Amino acid sequence: MRFFSDNAAPACPEVLAALSAANVQDTAYDGDQWSQALDARFSELFGTHVAVLWVPTGTAANCLALAALCPPYGGVVCHREAHIQMDEAGAPEFYTHGAKLLLADGAGAKLTPEAIAAVIDPIRADVHQVQPHAISITNATEYGLAYTPDDVAAIGRLARDRKLGLHMDGARFANALVHLGCKPAEVTWRAGVDALSFGFVKNGGMNAEALIFFRADQIEAARIRRKRAGHLQSKGRYLAAQLLAMLDDDVWLRNARSANAGAAALGTAAADRLVYPVEANEVFVRLSAEEAASLREQGFDFYDWGVGEARFVVAWDQDSAAVRPLADALAALA
Amino acid sequence: MRFFSDNAAPACPEVLAALSAANVQDTAYDGDQWSQALDARFSELFGTHVAVLWVPTGTAANCLALAALCPPYGGVVCHREAHIQMDEAGAPEFYTHGAKLLLADGAGAKLTPEAIAAVIDPIRADVHQVQPHAISITNATEYGLAYTPDDVAAIGRLARDRKLGLHMDGARFANALVHLGCKPAEVTWRAGVDALSFGFVKNGGMNAEALIFFRADQIEAARIRRKRAGHLQSKGRYLAAQLLAMLDDDVWLRNARSANAGAAALGTAAADRLVYPVEANEVFVRLSAEEAASLREQGFDFYDWGVGEARFVVAWDQDSAAVRPLADALAALA
Amino acid sequence: MRFFSDNAAPACPEVLAALSAANVQDTAYDGDQWSQALDARFSELFGTHVAVLWVPTGTAANCLALAALCPPYGGVVCHREAHIQMDEAGAPEFYTHGAKLLLADGAGAKLTPEAIAAVIDPIRADVHQVQPHAISITNATEYGLAYTPDDVAAIGRLARDRKLGLHMDGARFANALVHLGCKPAEVTWRAGVDALSFGFVKNGGMNAEALIFFRADQIEAARIRRKRAGHLQSKGRYLAAQLLAMLDDDVWLRNARSANAGAAALGTAAADRLVYPVEANEVFVRLSAEEAASLREQGFDFYDWGVGEARFVVAWDQDSAAVRPLADALAALA
Amino acid sequence: MRFFSDNAAPACPEVLAALSAANVQDTAYDGDQWSQALDARFSELFGTHVAVLWVPTGTAANCLALAALCPPYGGVVCHREAHIQMDEAGAPEFYTHGAKLLLADGAGAKLTPEAIAAVIDPIRADVHQVQPHAISITNATEYGLAYTPDDVAAIGRLARDRKLGLHMDGARFANALVHLGCKPAEVTWRAGVDALSFGFVKNGGMNAEALIFFRADQIEAARIRRKRAGHLQSKGRYLAAQLLAMLDDDVWLRNARSANAGAAALGTAAADRLVYPVEANEVFVRLSAEEAASLREQGFDFYDWGVGEARFVVAWDQDSAAVRPLADALAALA
Repeated sequence: MRFFSDNAAPACPEVLAALSAANVQDTAYDGDQWSQALDARFSELFGTHVAVLWVPTGTAANCLALAALCPPYGGVVCHREAHIQMDEAGAPEFYTHGAKLLLADGAGAKLTPEAIAAVIDPIRADVHQVQPHAISITNATEYGLAYTPDDVAAIGRLARDRKLGLHMDGARFANALVHLGCKPAEVTWRAGVDALSFGFVKNGGMNAEALIFFRADQIEAARIRRKRAGHLQSKGRYLAAQLLAMLDDDVWLRNARSANAGAAALGTAAADRLVYPVEANEVFVRLSAEEAASLREQGFDFYDWGVGEARFVVAWDQDSAAVRPLADALAALA
Repeated sequence: MRFFSDNAAPACPEVLAALSAANVQDTAYDGDQWSQALDARFSELFGTHVAVLWVPTGTAANCLALAALCPPYGGVVCHREAHIQMDEAGAPEFYTHGAKLLLADGAGAKLTPEAIAAVIDPIRADVHQVQPHAISITNATEYGLAYTPDDVAAIGRLARDRKLGLHMDGARFANALVHLGCKPAEVTWRAGVDALSFGFVKNGGMNAEALIFFRADQIEAARIRRKRAGHLQSKGRYLAAQLLAMLDDDVWLRNARSANAGAAALGTAAADRLVYPVEANEVFVRLSAEEAASLREQGFDFYDWGVGEARFVVAWDQDSAAVRPLADALAALA
Repeated sequence: MRFFSDNAAPACPEVLAALSAANVQDTAYDGDQWSQALDARFSELFGTHVAVLWVPTGTAANCLALAALCPPYGGVVCHREAHIQMDEAGAPEFYTHGAKLLLADGAGAKLTPEAIAAVIDPIRADVHQVQPHAISITNATEYGLAYTPDDVAAIGRLARDRKLGLHMDGARFANALVHLGCKPAEVTWRAGVDALSFGFVKNGGMNAEALIFFRADQIEAARIRRKRAGHLQSKGRYLAAQLLAMLDDDVWLRNARSANAGAAALGTAAADRLVYPVEANEVFVRLSAEEAASLREQGFDFYDWGVGEARFVVAWDQDSAAVRPLADALAALA
Repeated sequence: MRFFSDNAAPACPEVLAALSAANVQDTAYDGDQWSQALDARFSELFGTHVAVLWVPTGTAANCLALAALCPPYGGVVCHREAHIQMDEAGAPEFYTHGAKLLLADGAGAKLTPEAIAAVIDPIRADVHQVQPHAISITNATEYGLAYTPDDVAAIGRLARDRKLGLHMDGARFANALVHLGCKPAEVTWRAGVDALSFGFVKNGGMNAEALIFFRADQIEAARIRRKRAGHLQSKGRYLAAQLLAMLDDDVWLRNARSANAGAAALGTAAADRLVYPVEANEVFVRLSAEEAASLREQGFDFYDWGVGEARFVVAWDQDSAAVRPLADALAALA
């Protein structure tokens, strides 16, 4: 059984069905009926007018957002273990033409206003030092922790006070939301978020993510940058259709609930070993080399997270029943 | 009936079937079985070892190729109506970090060694002028003309003599090949091509193109650049599976033959109006405003190409029978 | 005698004296008394508030201006023989992060509203084509022609109508102004110019040019970009002092008058051979290979300008008396 | 008296004299006799063939070197307080087109092989993480400490083993060398350094630094990048002449000895307060707010270095006699 990454999971059936349904002649790029429906559909979801760009990857979504919020000569505050810093091959620097990531600390890859201030307060306001222009937070974080609406709002106030843009990397936004039990608006624009990378691929999508802009002034340049980066697919209908299919009947929430339930079951089974509380679909546990080897012998695949720790990621198709074998195996280790 | 763009067509059934077949759990990014099979499968097709990167768009393929062949301070010779110059929103400049496109002339957007030399010969070999590092040609051209193996080889010799890389934008490579009746090798690496953007989307694919490197020295950096541009999809299996499905049973050639046959039928019907000979799946005709209006009234959709001309593009699903109504309408205009 | 380039000339005595006078301890970068005096001094000259950045080269001035006026994904209209296109090694693309130069035609490297419109009118207003954001003109042009206030104002109106920024490369601004006999304001901000590269080096300076911004919104980012490009010299006093010394007692106009007079004398001597009228300090003449060889045998150094033409540039220290030997030699050729 | 920065000092008399001597007509750019003499003169100094580029600032020298050693998608290891990270406004990211600075720790801003390994060892060798391509060290460091030949050689071995380029920021190279008492070769190319930013401006120059390449393969592209960055001054003779004048009669060493002696005198006077040993021309001392205020009342200008510390920089024209008033004042504080 694979718990290595939620990227290993297939797409959910609704996505496949949507691709078939969209497999007709229509206008190229984003002129088709599905693409044209996105703004309205997501605006309804967020309870405010939003502009939506489909892109195939979270990296593209994140970096188009950062390029919208930060000039080439600016800086973006993020956690030092943020995906944009650790796992995107310098894509933020590529898209922004060289902006600098300003690295902040925080347990569980979670930022606080204090942690952000600790990074930006020492920066002299002169032309010699890179000035901050934006903050990027990840919800749920790289360690599976969710920012609450209050958490985000506190950062949002800091951002507004310092005239910084606020981006949320929501590669696992659905998982965070299911945990929080709040509306999408509460943890995004109402809390000060300017742009959201709304992840679908890890949650059962095939190859479409949504980049959501809550501010109208950024969308036009972002559309151009999407094309300029080679991300304006000529048959964009297939990306838009995926997104719509996952919003229909709350498939996105259903999938995330399933994954979160699976992770929760693992968290319960490994309660004494948890490095972080399980709030989304990732479970970080302390695991000796022998224990790790034992689990692998039993057929479980996962990620060694440094020495003595391991990461298990539960996908949309692995609910609490499906993860039972691993839960049992974890419990049996103790 | 739409003749506006081959991007308006749906994906062919084999592609849909391949997506369903690939809809299983596998390794993320390009570690899956389909992605891992690409190099061997395309190497077989080309009769030499090639390295293959899947990407979702021709713009991404073209610009990753150019970034491999040209440093930021270099220049790329292309036709002044090349897609990379006219329709990619400055993506070549983005990917290469500011290389300059050096614009050459030629009827039907087709370059010759003489036309290329006319651009590069006057360039002084000093640090003040941008030095050429690569040539990019499009086969079939933006006007639907095919470069023959001899045509390409002549440019390839120039490229080698001047130490320039040679890129082929093959957005409609299949259509060119069907017209030429030669092997893929003859018009590519045997003729001096270093990198090929091998198009599938216009030819019945959904959202996967193949970037083919014939030289081993460029592939490693290109893999990094693909990630850095946000094009390393986390579920890459769905791109690889499309490509493989279209190579199986020569679906790619079947589709291109169909489209070319449709275009040929239109060409015959509009023989007196042709701006260029019909060699691939595009038909450029002289058309008065009244004639254009008349065709549109009859339900035909197409692209006005400047004043007094129009472009009709035939897709993979529009064979000679399917285009009959337009062929008749064109013939009736005369 | 050298007529190859005005860059071959030494600095004028006032500049040397100013360097000695400024050779004291003062605040680093641009915090010194000379740098701090620039805005007021140039504002007085232009009759409006301007912000001034010293930089060591015209390329730096031009490209910082273009980066202020054009985003990475935009285009800048210029003449196809403009210095920024032909002789700056892709610096505009470097500084703008990949903006595209959109090349217009015009005799003597001089643009008109019609020539500019011919370039930008065909551009579709979509995300596929690079949209124009600025125009750059050179006064005097690369062929030594001066734009009059009316010439510039006509382009300024077009720029305003199309919401384009307007940059003037004034590498030989002094020479143009002396010819025009107008005030600096008339041919710049009153005519719609947003940023001016005000050249001093060719006109007797050592290594300081002035980048003048007529619009306040661009200066802050430009100051950052200057530092980011390594152009914020730590002892900036020596650049500022040069500029002030050349404004004092109208040294800049005196030097330009001298050079223009020298060029005029050559123009008179070679009246039958002129390719362009002599309006500044450059003289383009038709010259056979034999005639060129003869002049070189007599010790005259100059630039072959293609086949059958030659360029003679007169420096600030070559007045009409000083150029007499060449004038005589040219006259003797006939 | 100013101890704020060595950039506040004037140029030394030999530099002024050299500018006057070079104030004649000569070939533009770097075709003049002074520029042409640089390679030979510096090769003699270093005891090996080197290629030399003059540039006006240390930022330009540093960033041209980094661009030569690191591709856009790579990383450069440096100290987290290195000038390139803290004080160059993102210029490294601009020149390299977005390479990432990988920040290492070390007392006194000094790196060790262990500190570098601690940064690069955890980097996974995959396309998701930015791979290191170069190391940059500063000699003397930002805290005035000198790397010995052995210190550099140890890093040089690491660099060679890991196939990383090695750059030395020598903004205060002369001060380090005077302290070390070794030959320039020992602490540079013999120890594995590939490129050196050889500083002259802080040491009595006006506006010329030397970028030294010890490897032939990097120089051609660097020459182009210098032009492309607007740093190829049209009257380059004035930069080259400065450099030559400071090499003549070892003016550069004389100036550095003077500054170091001044700093040493301050170090002796403030021995109980030193944060770091005084090895070059910078003195970091613990200083209470009251003490700092008292010194400022006495007319001494310096830089507050965080809370409770201060930085005094001694310039080439402030020898041990000249700094006596400050030395006495510091001693009197105790």
